[in-house]
Amino acid sequence: MDFFDVDAILIKNATMPFIDENFFYFTHLNGVWEESIVLVTDNKVEIIAPLLEKREGIHVFNNKKERDNILIKLTKNMNKIGVNEKGLIYKDYVHLKKIFGRKMVDVSKQLEMMRAIKTRWEIKQLKKAAEIANKIVNKIEYKGKNELEVAGEIDCMIRKSNAMPSFDTIVAFGKNSSYPHHLPTNKKFSYPVLIDMGAKYNGYCSDITRTFIEKSHKEYEIIEEALYIAIDSIKDGVKARNVYKKVDDFLKKNGIKMIHALGHSIGIKVHDGLAINKKANFEFKENMTFAIEPAGYFKNFGIRIEEDVVVKKNKAEVISK
Amino acid sequence: MDFFDVDAILIKNATMPFIDENFFYFTHLNGVWEESIVLVTDNKVEIIAPLLEKREGIHVFNNKKERDNILIKLTKNMNKIGVNEKGLIYKDYVHLKKIFGRKMVDVSKQLEMMRAIKTRWEIKQLKKAAEIANKIVNKIEYKGKNELEVAGEIDCMIRKSNAMPSFDTIVAFGKNSSYPHHLPTNKKFSYPVLIDMGAKYNGYCSDITRTFIEKSHKEYEIIEEALYIAIDSIKDGVKARNVYKKVDDFLKKNGIKMIHALGHSIGIKVHDGLAINKKANFEFKENMTFAIEPAGYFKNFGIRIEEDVVVKKNKAEVISK
Repeated sequence: MDFFDVDAILIKNATMPFIDENFFYFTHLNGVWEESIVLVTDNKVEIIAPLLEKREGIHVFNNKKERDNILIKLTKNMNKIGVNEKGLIYKDYVHLKKIFGRKMVDVSKQLEMMRAIKTRWEIKQLKKAAEIANKIVNKIEYKGKNELEVAGEIDCMIRKSNAMPSFDTIVAFGKNSSYPHHLPTNKKFSYPVLIDMGAKYNGYCSDITRTFIEKSHKEYEIIEEALYIAIDSIKDGVKARNVYKKVDDFLKKNGIKMIHALGHSIGIKVHDGLAINKKANFEFKENMTFAIEPAGYFKNFGIRIEEDVVVKKNKAEVISK
Repeated sequence: MDFFDVDAILIKNATMPFIDENFFYFTHLNGVWEESIVLVTDNKVEIIAPLLEKREGIHVFNNKKERDNILIKLTKNMNKIGVNEKGLIYKDYVHLKKIFGRKMVDVSKQLEMMRAIKTRWEIKQLKKAAEIANKIVNKIEYKGKNELEVAGEIDCMIRKSNAMPSFDTIVAFGKNSSYPHHLPTNKKFSYPVLIDMGAKYNGYCSDITRTFIEKSHKEYEIIEEALYIAIDSIKDGVKARNVYKKVDDFLKKNGIKMIHALGHSIGIKVHDGLAINKKANFEFKENMTFAIEPAGYFKNFGIRIEEDVVVKKNKAEVISK
């Protein structure tokens, strides 16, 4: 645990929805794992879980006292234990602090940075997740339907691809496309058709947006150009806020104001920790993965186009087309 | 806010998945509402949200400083502000504590108790959610399919009923039914068929389990009897642990050991706060809602039967049949 400067990292889930995605990151165990703990050292991943989850190689407990005793035993010779202050509910933090006192330190920032750079296996899952989403968005029929029907059908197609929706699918017709977080209604089909969707495959999330328009369209072309300005600028070693600025300048010149980030890292979570906004101080690194989503929102319509990319040494590779 | 002995209740969401369901409870706003706050007083519900969520009647902010200033202004004359220590991540708790100091008190227990008793409107949504789930589980065809296929089809049927799955649908064939938290695999159909599923309708969750068996079956009959012992014992004023004990005694007499709670409250969350286990110290009250799920897990199979009920003065009304 040199990178973290601790002897172990301790991740604790509360009950749903307060489940720390780092539990899955370290264990690759599917399921909910409420009230479970993973303790990660350089050479071991120890799982401590309620009796209900009993299986080989897992420490199980009947009650909190038993759980704490297992934890104390496993950390006996440790001096520094890292926790995720962004993933622990207050009650659990206080309880762990009582056990570990000054041995307990925050490693939330380091966890984010570590997770930002994906392994080859992770990139494979992300590519598959992006492929599933892209196939579906190209196939979905929206004419003559309402937003809720289309969203429901997309979710079905995702489930039939052996994946899960990575978030609540957005389908926005006509004027509804002008709200970035629009939720599907029974509004009937009209252009533009904005679909923002993603598939979670083997625990990894894609996130893509398509805006379908009736005929060629000035604003659409501007947003599409913005997308490729972003993609062409992203590569290993470039500062994220510089890419943001470049795109923002281009859009401003064309009379469009960005009202959300240009993009975000993707991974186990659909918003996986890093945002590409004007303050983004991080550098793109090889094998980071992002969703890039320039957008313009106007009085009667909105345009958003979003693609998923893997950062390479000299370019960003689009994986969602 | 007499019940809470505070001037206001403050609920703050972090980013996904750390979203406090009490935000939805007080606002009835769908969507994710990351980083948003609701401040509830006796006569007002104030919502403070990022600029992206701009709409009428909502305070919006550009950055944390602006958000804090709105919060300070709205709470100027208040002496006691209740927060949910089970719904705040540690980082946010620390930040709010800096603003409010000793004015800030925990109301997590009171929130749980308030939410346990449902309004007429809430019960209506829960009945609809249970009706959707029951219809689907009665209709689903599982013969000749594998677990993943059946789970996917159930989720599609839920989406087509204008609802969402309230949790990851469990389909377990044969020996897999002996694991309470089994996740669907590509195992082909065999008896028993255990399906545990729920629909979330208008934000409210049902949760039902059916175990389909080939022919009459001693263990099935015992579990079914246990279910009706529970349902017949639940009514206003009865202690939850006494119902647990009654069922547990009956099962023990028949050689079956309960390895999880007999049931749990249902509401905005599928596990909504109360568990019916041997320590459950609360009394059932009129208009509480529960999923009751006695079960037996054996070497080669498991049986679980789960129904949703509303507690009435003199009985529990089953709403999932």
